[in-house]
Amino acid sequence: MAKEQGITVKKDQDFSEWYTQVIEKAELADIRFGVQGFLVHRPYGFQIIRKIYEYLEKEIEDDNHVPFLFPTVVKEENLKKEKEHAGFTPNVFWVTEAGSEKIEERFALRPTGEAQIYPLYSLWLRSHRDLPFKGYQSRISAFRNEMTTRPFLRGREFLFFESHDVFNTHEEALEQIETDLKICKTVIYDKLKIPFLYFKRPQWDKFKGADSTFTPDALMPDGKRIQLASTHDLGQNFSKAFNIKIMTKERKEEYAWQTCFGPGIWRIIASLIGIHGDDNGLVLPFDVAPVQIVIIPVLFGKEDRLILKKCKEIKEQLSNYRIKLDDREGYTPGYKYNEWELKGVPLRIEIGPRDLKENKAVLVKRTDKSKIPVKFKDLKKEIEKQIQSIDKEIKSKADKYFKDNTKEANTFEELKKIIQAHRGFVKVPFCSINLDGEKCADKIKEKISADVSGTLYPKEEKVKPNSKCVSCNKKANHIVYVAKSY
Amino acid sequence: MAKEQGITVKKDQDFSEWYTQVIEKAELADIRFGVQGFLVHRPYGFQIIRKIYEYLEKEIEDDNHVPFLFPTVVKEENLKKEKEHAGFTPNVFWVTEAGSEKIEERFALRPTGEAQIYPLYSLWLRSHRDLPFKGYQSRISAFRNEMTTRPFLRGREFLFFESHDVFNTHEEALEQIETDLKICKTVIYDKLKIPFLYFKRPQWDKFKGADSTFTPDALMPDGKRIQLASTHDLGQNFSKAFNIKIMTKERKEEYAWQTCFGPGIWRIIASLIGIHGDDNGLVLPFDVAPVQIVIIPVLFGKEDRLILKKCKEIKEQLSNYRIKLDDREGYTPGYKYNEWELKGVPLRIEIGPRDLKENKAVLVKRTDKSKIPVKFKDLKKEIEKQIQSIDKEIKSKADKYFKDNTKEANTFEELKKIIQAHRGFVKVPFCSINLDGEKCADKIKEKISADVSGTLYPKEEKVKPNSKCVSCNKKANHIVYVAKSY
Repeated sequence: MAKEQGITVKKDQDFSEWYTQVIEKAELADIRFGVQGFLVHRPYGFQIIRKIYEYLEKEIEDDNHVPFLFPTVVKEENLKKEKEHAGFTPNVFWVTEAGSEKIEERFALRPTGEAQIYPLYSLWLRSHRDLPFKGYQSRISAFRNEMTTRPFLRGREFLFFESHDVFNTHEEALEQIETDLKICKTVIYDKLKIPFLYFKRPQWDKFKGADSTFTPDALMPDGKRIQLASTHDLGQNFSKAFNIKIMTKERKEEYAWQTCFGPGIWRIIASLIGIHGDDNGLVLPFDVAPVQIVIIPVLFGKEDRLILKKCKEIKEQLSNYRIKLDDREGYTPGYKYNEWELKGVPLRIEIGPRDLKENKAVLVKRTDKSKIPVKFKDLKKEIEKQIQSIDKEIKSKADKYFKDNTKEANTFEELKKIIQAHRGFVKVPFCSINLDGEKCADKIKEKISADVSGTLYPKEEKVKPNSKCVSCNKKANHIVYVAKSY
Repeated sequence: MAKEQGITVKKDQDFSEWYTQVIEKAELADIRFGVQGFLVHRPYGFQIIRKIYEYLEKEIEDDNHVPFLFPTVVKEENLKKEKEHAGFTPNVFWVTEAGSEKIEERFALRPTGEAQIYPLYSLWLRSHRDLPFKGYQSRISAFRNEMTTRPFLRGREFLFFESHDVFNTHEEALEQIETDLKICKTVIYDKLKIPFLYFKRPQWDKFKGADSTFTPDALMPDGKRIQLASTHDLGQNFSKAFNIKIMTKERKEEYAWQTCFGPGIWRIIASLIGIHGDDNGLVLPFDVAPVQIVIIPVLFGKEDRLILKKCKEIKEQLSNYRIKLDDREGYTPGYKYNEWELKGVPLRIEIGPRDLKENKAVLVKRTDKSKIPVKFKDLKKEIEKQIQSIDKEIKSKADKYFKDNTKEANTFEELKKIIQAHRGFVKVPFCSINLDGEKCADKIKEKISADVSGTLYPKEEKVKPNSKCVSCNKKANHIVYVAKSY
């Protein structure tokens, strides 16, 4: 009655089904929790997520942020204060009863942190000497009553990380935006090998309470754009709503300048799964893999004891890695190979009777499945070498896909053709990224279901002279990137 | 309008007020969140808590537990299944609305993990080969509608850590209990220097769904017992309620054996604050301190630039520690000394003009406030030495308090006298720790407001021949420890 062990569809042919199967079969998450839209993070998936959190925490603390932890809930009155800015109230969950009684004052599950945190900032931060104040919370959840949910893409509870920074000047706030984007590069591209572009979102698609919103957007294998984080220039909007007033050096009271930054933890693991995976399942960069090396003894009877002894020896020698010896009985080596390939373990060491006799093991790389015979004495060195090559292969494959699916068009027809054939990003001339451009974006959305992602940031590309907007055919003032999106 | 900087009461004279002031003035937590019983963990407090989590995570993973993460909520139907076992339903919070609509099936905020986790265990664990399975979740919250709340002692949302282990045999489960208790020793005593006794709780005071409950209990400065963790032998109670059936080697279906372990994160930081602190505020073991060393320049004008330069040099040299240079302008050195003492920073380095001339700094220990002049070139070595001595002093002070407040009594009158005068633990002969002993415990509770903590574990002490129960005067079969409790 066991389900088929491997993935039964090709990633290129049915990405959506492939994604669902990988999440289940690699034991990343379980959707059978029983409360709709709430997901169980299984050990293998959670260990990957924890690594992502650790990367982010390191970078944000190196940038002088201090960690804090706010409650899971938020006061209704504070949620209302931010209403016009964040606009989450329509889909928050309300706690209204305790035991068998109605509670006096209902409260909400946090849809995001602003309405929780800023009232306290208004108490903590008074003087210019208290600034800059940079705080963050990590490994928490946020809650929104989404109608449709998918593991790691959209949930009623989803994993959260948010930093909230307060400055004396707008200039400092803008510098922070640059730093936040650098953190995205370090974690998402350097560590996780996920290529993306930075955008400044059009005014109609920014976070409501922000002056501007900036995002790193990647491309999933189905050619859709996936937003992986956002950092917002909040100006003085929230400091006015939540009364964060600062006594300046000149002894004047002024509203503080704020930014906030939220990497999408789920989005990041979703793109890690989607972008690097192949028809056999997960493919993971070495450092992020919960199991980095698996040793599989190939047992036939006679030499078993000696082979197992050697495997244990090697496990001991390589204990600086997250290494597993799969000596479970009752499973064939082939079954084990498939299982660990499905889970994306970067390196496999096979040792059978003949290998033992020849003082060697066979090293198998998850990326290209190449088999490398290695003398026991050279194993350590060879592994170090292969780690580099695995990460390089993952990176260049992802870079190539991203590059191949970022194209240009100069007319609506060209745009339409590319979006319908290749999907991915299409670079086009566009009239305006202020609110007056929204109707041109609406037309694109309506006709080819694609979105205007914004202009490149921090360096906006120059429009060629006499370019026309692909949507309205009037003078183009910007180069924007159009894509279908998650 | 600034509040008085330091603690305005003596710890010995009004512990409760002292505790409240330390939490506020050392900026550990903020009670002004606006939803009753929900606490904000401020950066300084949260960094201590995170360290406690890190210690626990290391130990539990060294014991082969894998991390997972379940939703914050729980399905009503599953909560009902555990009702007779855990009995939390009367005070759970219910989510009943989303946006402006009633939701179809209300769900609860998790009061603890069993009812969330065990339904999934029943899907994941099928064969004896899947066991032992040891999983845990960390850095999460649990929720109960408590009537009275106090920071780190009782909250409507409180910080949680729980491991849930499944075994083929009862023997393995009992071994796990021992391991859980060893983890408590490593983290709570070895790292945090909090002395405690292990108890097996009387049958009337165990976790409802457990066969037996085991706890490390410490003593707060007000002489009250504080339970810091619990580990439960769940027998097959929950595996029957949640249908966790295992196919044995002999191909028979049997219910699994379970244990669960929950260190009380809040209780642990509460006792860390309470037990080690003094009239000036927090005292922290070196490794747990968010700031381990603070450098304070003593500036008078002329030599300021040189002093600051030297301070920065020293900060650089000692960058393997969590070190802070407090060069804030507008505060006197004295103000800064008080602030960092309040926050329990273990070592302070003072450098003034005369020190600079003499090529030395003054090292001040938080524990005994001793001032040690040290040549710059010897600073590193001296600090290493003093770290040891600080931790030793903290430990021996805590050990002494614990020992001095653990006494013996043989009659009810003796017990009463000690509890009323000295408080602390009182070791007494007692009739029974099974349910038939409950009325004797009730009498003690009623007359002197103290609780029977249980018998020592794993080695129960022997009763002297002819001893009588302090409560009913019948034959004593156990030595138990009585104390007032949190």
